[in-house]
Amino acid sequence: MPRTLIWKSIADALIADLAAGHYGPGDKLPTEAQLAARFDVNRHTVRRALSHLADAGLVLARRGAGVFVAETPTDYPLGKRVRFHQNLAASGREGEKRILSLITRAADSDEATALKLDQGALVHVCEGLLLADDKPIGLFRSVYPEARLPGLPRFLNADPSVTRALANCGVDDYTRTSTRLTAKSAKAVQARHLNIAEGAPVLRSVSISIDPQNIPVEFGTTWFAGDRVTLVLGDDQRN
Amino acid sequence: MPRTLIWKSIADALIADLAAGHYGPGDKLPTEAQLAARFDVNRHTVRRALSHLADAGLVLARRGAGVFVAETPTDYPLGKRVRFHQNLAASGREGEKRILSLITRAADSDEATALKLDQGALVHVCEGLLLADDKPIGLFRSVYPEARLPGLPRFLNADPSVTRALANCGVDDYTRTSTRLTAKSAKAVQARHLNIAEGAPVLRSVSISIDPQNIPVEFGTTWFAGDRVTLVLGDDQRN
Repeated sequence: MPRTLIWKSIADALIADLAAGHYGPGDKLPTEAQLAARFDVNRHTVRRALSHLADAGLVLARRGAGVFVAETPTDYPLGKRVRFHQNLAASGREGEKRILSLITRAADSDEATALKLDQGALVHVCEGLLLADDKPIGLFRSVYPEARLPGLPRFLNADPSVTRALANCGVDDYTRTSTRLTAKSAKAVQARHLNIAEGAPVLRSVSISIDPQNIPVEFGTTWFAGDRVTLVLGDDQRN
Repeated sequence: MPRTLIWKSIADALIADLAAGHYGPGDKLPTEAQLAARFDVNRHTVRRALSHLADAGLVLARRGAGVFVAETPTDYPLGKRVRFHQNLAASGREGEKRILSLITRAADSDEATALKLDQGALVHVCEGLLLADDKPIGLFRSVYPEARLPGLPRFLNADPSVTRALANCGVDDYTRTSTRLTAKSAKAVQARHLNIAEGAPVLRSVSISIDPQNIPVEFGTTWFAGDRVTLVLGDDQRN
């Protein structure tokens, strides 16, 4: 009679726990020592079982922190009109935008180039968090031309919706001209904000949005937590 | 008279080296010990200078391997018609597709769903490397329906161009329906193929391509090395 490998039967027991909802997305699993005690095996065997679950994408090990149940990534449509709250609602999640800082300062050379401003022209810089169902999924920095949108900070402070703040400044519509995507390692501050490990993968999106007269109104960078967001690009999103 | 900080002057000297082309993209810098000797400082001061260069995106530290000059990422347009060689040529780079394995086997459930096949139907699975100017920038796995494209492996083995191989099988055009993008950490085998550190960020793209009758002909996954590729999404690419 074939003998089931011990690590495999432990993996199956843990998979059954996950399927039964004993641990939900983002939850920490018991420690290796606790699991070794529960299954009456050594930690090496527990590690083999956990590594099997990790390979299957069911759990994630975070160095020094433990093993966590993988979260279902939020789908985030990428199209010409990227509207945060609608995007999240389409994935059945509640979106929240939390502004961390909002300052007005001179543009650096990248910002001036992106917004077609003179070097040193004033820009509003808004930094903050994107949350889905109260969990941080991204960190954003949006840069706006001050001369064109002098009252923007006041509107954003009252209501973080960019669409409404721009409308209040007379920009009734805006679309993305281009989006540039790269995978990066989270820096310490980003990791802290996103509640992920330093060095964990983040998807960086850099985009420029223009008004109907083709004048740039926003230069935006977003760092999405790699395991929490899938950017989706498809015909239906290109509206 | 203000005194220039030692680490800052070392950073400036290294930046001048890079600007002069003494070290090219992807080259390894001298070790900390060598730099400490060259500048007659301790390694702490060298590390401060290197960390300044890393923050500026000029160099990348790879754990256990050393510090390397950052490479200029290849722009890779993402649109409905993604054609590898044209994409690279548009960035002024020479593209090469190198097939590592090409087998025919039963589809797993994800593959069967993506290609609208019965579970267990045969698929051709082609895995390989994408290179730009002889450097690996991505790893791909493409899955094709065997029943529709029985002769595909023969054509791909003779010529890795998917466009031509599909044309030889009677599929004259194909377009992407959707692309799903996530940032991931490179697994050991991927890291080895891409010549990056294990755990380094990779951008995973998952897409389905259809023929003009809307029948799926390819289910493709590509893992792009994070620091070597920027996926570009813009109006001009949406043709």
